[in-house]
Amino acid sequence: MPLVRISLNAGKPESHRRAIGDAVHRAMVETIKVPEKDKFQILSEEPAGSLVYDPSYLDIARTDAVVFIQITLNAGRTVEMKKAFYARAVELLAQSPGLRKEDVVISLIEVPKENWSFGNGIAQYA
Amino acid sequence: MPLVRISLNAGKPESHRRAIGDAVHRAMVETIKVPEKDKFQILSEEPAGSLVYDPSYLDIARTDAVVFIQITLNAGRTVEMKKAFYARAVELLAQSPGLRKEDVVISLIEVPKENWSFGNGIAQYA
Amino acid sequence: MPLVRISLNAGKPESHRRAIGDAVHRAMVETIKVPEKDKFQILSEEPAGSLVYDPSYLDIARTDAVVFIQITLNAGRTVEMKKAFYARAVELLAQSPGLRKEDVVISLIEVPKENWSFGNGIAQYA
Repeated sequence: MPLVRISLNAGKPESHRRAIGDAVHRAMVETIKVPEKDKFQILSEEPAGSLVYDPSYLDIARTDAVVFIQITLNAGRTVEMKKAFYARAVELLAQSPGLRKEDVVISLIEVPKENWSFGNGIAQYA
Repeated sequence: MPLVRISLNAGKPESHRRAIGDAVHRAMVETIKVPEKDKFQILSEEPAGSLVYDPSYLDIARTDAVVFIQITLNAGRTVEMKKAFYARAVELLAQSPGLRKEDVVISLIEVPKENWSFGNGIAQYA
Repeated sequence: MPLVRISLNAGKPESHRRAIGDAVHRAMVETIKVPEKDKFQILSEEPAGSLVYDPSYLDIARTDAVVFIQITLNAGRTVEMKKAFYARAVELLAQSPGLRKEDVVISLIEVPKENWSFGNGIAQYA
């Protein structure tokens, strides 16, 4: 159910992108009850100049290794669950592939459960 | 009004992508009252390794021909209308370009009608 | 806080894309209280055939210079503020990089303030 869009500057090996996707997924499984197999992601390398970020907004020092993670998911998680997810995501991303915690920008978009079809033209959650 | 983002693995001709876009649009026109000319889409080919999907979540057998379809549209469709859309979309996509029904993943994001401008800096629906 | 996705046909220099991003950001700062440094954007060039648009929907004459601007931002702006933003955005985009007002398509997606983390795994707005 979560559809995860991950955008980062080009130049890293595929394994780097996959490690980011894996860490984000693991954090969701651990903190916001996403099923283990519910893994759908788009890992986008952006060419030079395409990813725009402020290097110090909110006094956080970001670098060109910045990663934008935008997740569409079902509504229903509490604020505390969301906070636990953010914290766990940066922790796992720091372990592998070794992202700086300052370089992880996360955005959530919530939708009702009837807004998904995972194949066969059926609204599996509705 | 719907803005449709379609993501699939690279390697198919442009006609394949256009057929997917056309089928999704046709299904919206037939089932959820989208105007015939209200067609705005981004058809994205993703390089190898960028599209991550689970091959069996919810016991649906997906392949590398999987297509992610994420649609931003106005709120107001009923659950029954959404279900009719999913069913019709996979039916039309199976006809052309010949997608397997298992390979069609759909995500809807709903917004209020004042959240659109279709040109000229005017909120045409508000 | 706004995460801005800008999609346009390939073939323009990077400065063109950056000017679009700058104009959109400026319009948000002026009309909907986005902080000056709160600038996070993905500027995507789409290869030929990937950007699909209707050339006359709502009697607006669009060209291949069309730009799709999709902005995820916090909920809370009034309809009047959104209208002011649309109007100012096309005005600034006409000044630089010189877009036709008909070619600017804008979509807003609103989220609650706890749906963001700008680094360090913290929900800075919650």
